[in-house]
Amino acid sequence: MSVLVLHILYIIAITAESMTAALAAGRRSMDWIGVCLLGAITALGGGSMRDVLLGHYPLVWVAHPEYLLLTVAAALGTIAVARFMHRLRWIFLVLDAIGLVVFTVIGCNVAREMGLSPTVVIVAGMITGCVGGVLRDILCNRVPLLFRSELYASVSVVTGGLYVAALALDWHHEVALFTAMAAGLTMRLLALRFNWHMPKFVYAREGQ
Amino acid sequence: MSVLVLHILYIIAITAESMTAALAAGRRSMDWIGVCLLGAITALGGGSMRDVLLGHYPLVWVAHPEYLLLTVAAALGTIAVARFMHRLRWIFLVLDAIGLVVFTVIGCNVAREMGLSPTVVIVAGMITGCVGGVLRDILCNRVPLLFRSELYASVSVVTGGLYVAALALDWHHEVALFTAMAAGLTMRLLALRFNWHMPKFVYAREGQ
Amino acid sequence: MSVLVLHILYIIAITAESMTAALAAGRRSMDWIGVCLLGAITALGGGSMRDVLLGHYPLVWVAHPEYLLLTVAAALGTIAVARFMHRLRWIFLVLDAIGLVVFTVIGCNVAREMGLSPTVVIVAGMITGCVGGVLRDILCNRVPLLFRSELYASVSVVTGGLYVAALALDWHHEVALFTAMAAGLTMRLLALRFNWHMPKFVYAREGQ
Repeated sequence: MSVLVLHILYIIAITAESMTAALAAGRRSMDWIGVCLLGAITALGGGSMRDVLLGHYPLVWVAHPEYLLLTVAAALGTIAVARFMHRLRWIFLVLDAIGLVVFTVIGCNVAREMGLSPTVVIVAGMITGCVGGVLRDILCNRVPLLFRSELYASVSVVTGGLYVAALALDWHHEVALFTAMAAGLTMRLLALRFNWHMPKFVYAREGQ
Repeated sequence: MSVLVLHILYIIAITAESMTAALAAGRRSMDWIGVCLLGAITALGGGSMRDVLLGHYPLVWVAHPEYLLLTVAAALGTIAVARFMHRLRWIFLVLDAIGLVVFTVIGCNVAREMGLSPTVVIVAGMITGCVGGVLRDILCNRVPLLFRSELYASVSVVTGGLYVAALALDWHHEVALFTAMAAGLTMRLLALRFNWHMPKFVYAREGQ
Repeated sequence: MSVLVLHILYIIAITAESMTAALAAGRRSMDWIGVCLLGAITALGGGSMRDVLLGHYPLVWVAHPEYLLLTVAAALGTIAVARFMHRLRWIFLVLDAIGLVVFTVIGCNVAREMGLSPTVVIVAGMITGCVGGVLRDILCNRVPLLFRSELYASVSVVTGGLYVAALALDWHHEVALFTAMAAGLTMRLLALRFNWHMPKFVYAREGQ
């Protein structure tokens, strides 16, 4: 059952990620091809980076090109519905938060199935959850948001850490999965609602 | 025969790509090492990205380091001849267009030989054709041109799509290959001549 | 013996690289997570890029997650001690130079053990030595320093070239290793002391 739910949430998440990336592309006045590419790279880039770093072939979109086509369709569709999307802003923020925790636990599972250590399992989850947004920001030529203002990476680490800890404590797999995801989702939504931030490190000296 | 022609075109294309990247490096006042690196990364980056994403090892320049040395030599030579290159601007635009379609069909062939699906074959061609220029733009710290103003990616998708379609229709391999390349080349040159652009998606609302 | 010395120098080098990257993160006012990520990516990015390009799995930090944790700890520690680090500026420049030559010879050895050609061995050394800093600069949204103002890449190529040449001349392995490292380190420190630069290629014409 958890596999099916996770799969459905994954489909929703890559669609939502591609749509929000398409809006970022529109803010940079990219052409339609640029919108499609940025959508697909943002939605599938995290999983691709994880698989390349772990040597886990074939990549998801190579084995399932239908996901790639879905993200392209979602990005193109965004061009049509963009004018209405600001009314749905909260829906997309929630879908984005769901995407973050879903990507994270899926990434953790890939590393677990390869028999990797808990540290690497958590890092694989974080890469899956966060790298898509980093690639989007680099391609839009700005300092990645991840490094500056969001609890994004922290939520991913907490979700992955809880999941790994719960499994180490021999919790039932579905309980561990949904507890970790619920905790991460709650943390992300509270961070959005109350504008939580990590402390910043400000270093003003000259140098490299 | 087609293998030999494709090979010769590939050699010409990586040389031309490295030379135009060296000019871009000169516009940023990079030092000689930077010029060599940017030339090699631009010329060989697309194929490298394709091979890493598909898990197709060894990479071209690892198996054939002479190609790497060629791109470095072409970049260094550009420093000497740069003052004359603006007179040859059209030659380089044509060589760049040839490079785009040659890289694309070579990329398609790598994915075909791995037995991948038509969608992935076309995407592999596009990655091979376009990623070098994207890496060049990221390393020069600007929004990749690909996403903004060129029919570049579209030409690559059309070339790859025609090639895959012709093969699916059981055309003779060389006919499919050169028809797709001729169509893509014509499209690119017409786009340059008549300043064709993809429609842009402009989205001006505030946000992430 | 040389293996142990190289290992100790590697540990020192990734710590120093992570700490200097943390300072760069502080100059961009990144949050604590961003500081950790930038430290880890800078310290381990070169080796990771080399392993991905050569298809050399598992990556170092996947097999040895303790190195990853070390770089994160070093980055976090930097937040505490940053105010004193400018007094230690020369120590960090020397540690950074040591890191460059150590990463280079380690990268060369990985490629040598895979039986690759001398050109690729030297390139593998350069990637290991230099890519971490390039990733740091891309993530900080600036043109990589490597391409503009440092003898960094040149030092790496000279170190790798001497090492490969000495081995080809049948020098004893430890003599080859430490001769190449000493030459590279001397060159780097002289470049810092006397402000040596590679000649620049300045090309001012309009264009792409």
